[in-house]
Order: sequence, then C-alpha cells, then structure tokens
Amino acid sequence: MRILHTADWHLGRIFHQVHMTEDQAAVLDQFIDLIKDRRPHAVIVAGDIYDRSVPPVDAVRLLDEVITRILLDHRTAVIMVAGNHDSADRLGFGNRLFAGRGFHLFGRLDRDMAPIPVEDETGPVWFCPIPYAEPALVRETFGSSPEAVRGHNEALRVLADHMSARTPAGARRIAVAHAFVTGGEQSESESFLTVGGAGTVDGSIFEGFHYTALGHLHRPQHCGHDRIRYSGSLLKYSFSEADHQKGITFVELDGAGQITACESIALTPRRDVRRLEGYLNDILKGAAPGENRQDYVMVTLLDEGAILDPIGKIRQVYPNVLHIQRTFLERGSGAVRSVGDHRRLDDLDLFASFMEQVTGSPLDEEGRQVAADVIDDVLGRCREVAP
Amino acid sequence: MRILHTADWHLGRIFHQVHMTEDQAAVLDQFIDLIKDRRPHAVIVAGDIYDRSVPPVDAVRLLDEVITRILLDHRTAVIMVAGNHDSADRLGFGNRLFAGRGFHLFGRLDRDMAPIPVEDETGPVWFCPIPYAEPALVRETFGSSPEAVRGHNEALRVLADHMSARTPAGARRIAVAHAFVTGGEQSESESFLTVGGAGTVDGSIFEGFHYTALGHLHRPQHCGHDRIRYSGSLLKYSFSEADHQKGITFVELDGAGQITACESIALTPRRDVRRLEGYLNDILKGAAPGENRQDYVMVTLLDEGAILDPIGKIRQVYPNVLHIQRTFLERGSGAVRSVGDHRRLDDLDLFASFMEQVTGSPLDEEGRQVAADVIDDVLGRCREVAP
Repeated sequence: MRILHTADWHLGRIFHQVHMTEDQAAVLDQFIDLIKDRRPHAVIVAGDIYDRSVPPVDAVRLLDEVITRILLDHRTAVIMVAGNHDSADRLGFGNRLFAGRGFHLFGRLDRDMAPIPVEDETGPVWFCPIPYAEPALVRETFGSSPEAVRGHNEALRVLADHMSARTPAGARRIAVAHAFVTGGEQSESESFLTVGGAGTVDGSIFEGFHYTALGHLHRPQHCGHDRIRYSGSLLKYSFSEADHQKGITFVELDGAGQITACESIALTPRRDVRRLEGYLNDILKGAAPGENRQDYVMVTLLDEGAILDPIGKIRQVYPNVLHIQRTFLERGSGAVRSVGDHRRLDDLDLFASFMEQVTGSPLDEEGRQVAADVIDDVLGRCREVAP
Repeated sequence: MRILHTADWHLGRIFHQVHMTEDQAAVLDQFIDLIKDRRPHAVIVAGDIYDRSVPPVDAVRLLDEVITRILLDHRTAVIMVAGNHDSADRLGFGNRLFAGRGFHLFGRLDRDMAPIPVEDETGPVWFCPIPYAEPALVRETFGSSPEAVRGHNEALRVLADHMSARTPAGARRIAVAHAFVTGGEQSESESFLTVGGAGTVDGSIFEGFHYTALGHLHRPQHCGHDRIRYSGSLLKYSFSEADHQKGITFVELDGAGQITACESIALTPRRDVRRLEGYLNDILKGAAPGENRQDYVMVTLLDEGAILDPIGKIRQVYPNVLHIQRTFLERGSGAVRSVGDHRRLDDLDLFASFMEQVTGSPLDEEGRQVAADVIDDVLGRCREVAP
C-alpha cells in the first residue's frame, strides 16, 4: 500500500500581508505530479486545509481544482479531515456525495463516522479518520460523561477507539488525525489547540495503528515512534519555520502492515522563506550568485542608530522583504529597568529614560543638551499656536 | 418528463432579526415528501440558494442535508444554478465531482458548461443551466465584444445561445436561469440586479426552449408566455409578499416537449407572514379562532397619539410580531412642510413645528402651554446641575 501523506495546507494564508494562494498552487501542482509518479493507493490530507473558517474565494477555487484533478484525472482515493483552522461544517459540505467518488472528507463529528477501506493487492487497509473536534463536542456526540472526556487526550482516545472497533480484528489500520502529540516541536504559526497545554495528546493512543498520519505541527517529524508522523505543512508559514525542509511524506506498508518505506519528498516553493542577518551596507551589496532575490525574507540588521527607510532600501535587492528586525532596538527589551513612575518625570528625563531603555546606555551630556533644545523649541512653538 | 421547479430558497435568511433556517427546514421536509410522491425525473433549483455569499453554518448544514437526501434517498437528478445572492465560487465547490452523483451544480461561469441530458421513456430532455453572471464576466468568459454584451439582456442571450447550440436539433430543451424577465412583478425582498432597470431581460431569449424555469422574482408567475415561469420563493421573505401563495411548480412535458401539466403545489410554512391592521384595543382582544398566533405579523395601528410599548402589548397576543406601523405618524411624511431654518427657532417653536409635522395639525394653545412649562422646568434643572 503506497500512501502520500500531507497536511496543513492553510489555503488562503496571508503571510505578512502577502496572499500565498499562488505559492500554494505552485507546490500543489508538484504534488499532483508526485501522485502521477508514485501512483499511491491513497492520499491523506490531515487537517488545516484552509487557513480560516471562511477562506477567500481564491482558496476555495484552488482546493476545488486540486481535489477534482486528483479524483478525476488520477482516480486516487483522498482521505481528508478537518483541522482546528477549518470550519468543520463548511469544509464538510457534500461529503456523503463525494464519498461515492473516492473523496472521503470528514468535517463535523458524526457518530456514524466509519473507517474507509482502500484495497491493494493483499487486501484492504482501513483508514480511520479523526477530524479535529473540541472535547465538549466529542462528549455530546458520543454521549461520554464529562469526567471521562475532560481534555483533548481523552477525546482523541474515544475517537480512536470508536474507529478501531469498526475495523476487523487483525486488519491493517491507519489513523488520520489533527492533534498536538506530546513531544512534538512547535513553530510560531500553529495556533494553540487549548490555552495552557491541555491540548496535547499521548502518542500511546495510536498504538493499535500501523501508521498514524498527523497534521497540526508544521515541521515534518516522527513522534516518539516511527509509525506516528507529522508530514509538516505545505509551505513555510512563519519565519520561525525558515530552517524546515517541507515536503510530502511517502509511506509504504507491506501486506502485514509493516512500514517498508517512509520518505519526505521535498517540494520546491516558488519563493523560499528565509532569514538574513547583517549590516545594511553588506545586505545592499546584493544577493549571492544562485540566491533567489524573489524569496520572502526577513532581515535582522546589526546596525545601530537611525536608518532612513531601511525596508525601502532592502527592497531594491530583495523585492519581497517582509520584515525587518533591529537588534539594537531590542537589546534593552530583555531587561527593562524600572524608572519609577514615568508620569512623575519631566519631558527631558522621560526622553532620557526612553533612550536608555532602547539603546542600553544612558544618554550622554551632549545628547541631553540636544534633546532639551528640541523640547524647548517644540513647546515654544506650541505656545505660539495655542496661547 | 416530470419536473419539480423551485427557486429562491435564500437559506440563512434573517427576517426582521429572526433566523429563518428552521422555517426553511420545515418546508424543505415537505418538498422532499413531494419528491417521494411525484417521483420527478429532475428537480430544478433556479438560484439564490443562499441568502448571501457567506451563509451561516446552519444554512450550509441544511443544504447539505437536503441535497444528500434527494440524491441518495430518492436518486433524483438535481439541476441547480447560482443566483445573484450566491457566491458562485463558494456554492460551486466540488461540482465536477457532484455531477457523477446526479447533482448538477452550476456556480461560476465556464466556457465548457454544457447542457445536462435527463432521460425519460421517450428519450432525453436537455437541461440548459444559465447561472447568474455579471455581463462583464460573460464578456470575459466567452470573448464577446463589449459592444455586443452591454447589459444583462445581451449577456443572457449569449448564454442561452451557447447552451442551445450544444443540444441536438429538434431535442427537448429546458432553460434554467436566474434573471429578471421584463413584465415580471417584483416584491421588496429581491435585490436589484442592476440599478436603473438595465437588469431586465427579454422573454424572447427563451423562445427556443420548451420550458424555462426561472428564479429571482418571489411571486410564482408566468412571464408573458406559459412556457416561461417563476416558481416563486420557498417562503415569504418580506411583508410585501404577505398575499403571495408560495409553492413548488410541478411541470410535465410529453415526448414532443409540449407542457401537459403545470401546477403550483402549496407548501405549509411553520409560520405564515401576515399583515394586520386595526386599533390596538381590537388587536389585543386576541386572535380569531383558527388563526395561528405564532405567525410572523406586521401590525398597522390606526390609533393616534402616544402608546406606551405597543409591540410589547401586541406580543402578548402575537408572540412573533416583527414590525409595527403607525399610520398617523406617517401621514405627514408625504408632505413635510418647510418651517424655514429650524436652527433659528426657539425651543418652543421648534417643538410646535415638530408636533405639527408628526400629527398633521398645529399644536393648540393648551398644548403650547404644557410644552412651555416642561421646557422651562427642564432648562431650570439643567442650570441647577451645571451653573
């Protein structure tokens, strides 16, 4: 059984004001080529299909196009579950009709949800969909007691057990879930499932499955065990993911359910997401040979002091620079000194204390004199205008 | 060929702050019973499926339920086109996959759009879908010149001709469109297609079709010709529709395409939409025997003068009273007299002029004296508080 496992497409994502739909379309084209090459028996998309519950129209159109091509041109079964970013009801529209076309879509939780058998030469593999759901909804849907299902861990166990119980004994089983399994590594672009960490679930829930295809965490990674895996997101969706190697996971199971291959196949984004660090003059010397100037970059400038329009200057070299960080401005932020009640400081002392926080060293006598002159001048003019 | 023709469901409609989804679900249940009884070869839904481009989740769930039951439980083909209230892209998601299940959904305009053949004992009838589209989009999609497609009339002709050309000569043809055909009668709840009336189209466009199933106007009606018909909306969606008899149109064509039956079958809403007129005391005497107190009512009160909390009082008899009109308050509005520059009137004259406008007769001497006393009293107290 050959499977392509992907997740966290976040279609319609806006990254520092850039609509990423074209970038997403470009890698999804490669994904479809991969389906053509590898001829998987099934494709898994493990949640966060869209970036938000009401995605932009372009994102809806892109998903329509991709799913239609996979199903009609390549006749490959798709198992897709909703993630915490998706609206389960909106995403799940028409799912009972789609099922007859091989598109197995799981949005809103439903007591009648059942595993999907997909056949290979040796028999069926049972795909057990576990769409993202709040614990309260799991209680309501499955009539569990509030004590039994307090958090995501218990909720996911109820769902996993519900699915397992609906597969034949000894069958090959694959879980498809959107969850934060304990020990996984987070990035900045995943929203918390639950404030305070109660959203994590225990990997042991998936012990009865031959493979668990996860979504939620954006870095491709195993989770404690080889058979429990995050494919990672389609693209880098935050600068904290700049060092990730994104891709699609290709998994192969033999007739006994043993994993015989597991590989992350890289996709080539139209524009990479990168972090640069240096002095402005060095950055402005231009991109290195072979470097894609069109990449989405964040620049950390080491220069101190005022710079006029740094992003405008850097844009000449990197047209898609999205964010600039000034180390010297942030230096003080780790240890903000108390200056007492700032409301009791006069204008000059207030400014001096601000400068000290920002630069890390006290304003010298010359600086104080310049500031005092400016303050006098400004206040004098104010008095002229409004006597 | 037996057809059930309906339109303008406006799922998710909010009517005077009441969410109508439960009312809609109740009549759609009856609609499904009708499908069971009449066993049509096809069901037509001619646009404005939803009330707005991003419908509430309840409405999405209701449409999913209804369509799934029609297709899976009753195996009846559905031909559905987008109306001007729908988002063509959002509504149309997955339509190429749905088509294989007998759900023929037409959202965004597409050059490859083709008629859908549905078979009866004598052969195929070709359903020609014409989803609502702005003339500019028709030009863009079909490469027509701006001169040839200036308004909705020309745009609809391009689409109707495109469809006709894709049916065999002599075939039975049914057009399914969402448009404002000249001569039709409007209600208050249809949004204008185009300001100024350029949105109307000529019924002659549909001459080549054996039946034209229209949506947009909310009153069931023929349009110039027996073969061109609005089914009307699912429910009454404004008080201006209080006298409409809503229903589903049942149409039968013989093997030659002649209409052998055409009937509007009434559905029974959970709550009717009605207008009442009278004096408050008469209204408060209670509902007549057999009258549904739960109906959505608008009350026109004939009383003059101030009434404390009239809607609260009427709600004791009609819990779902949604709107109250006071005839005496509106009497003056047709002929608001100029009182000169009201900024130059003193408080008493300003009040007297207001009363005259509202009641239609000048404030008498006693009234002036009462008003003067109140004004003096109020101003006196104001001076005490803020000297």
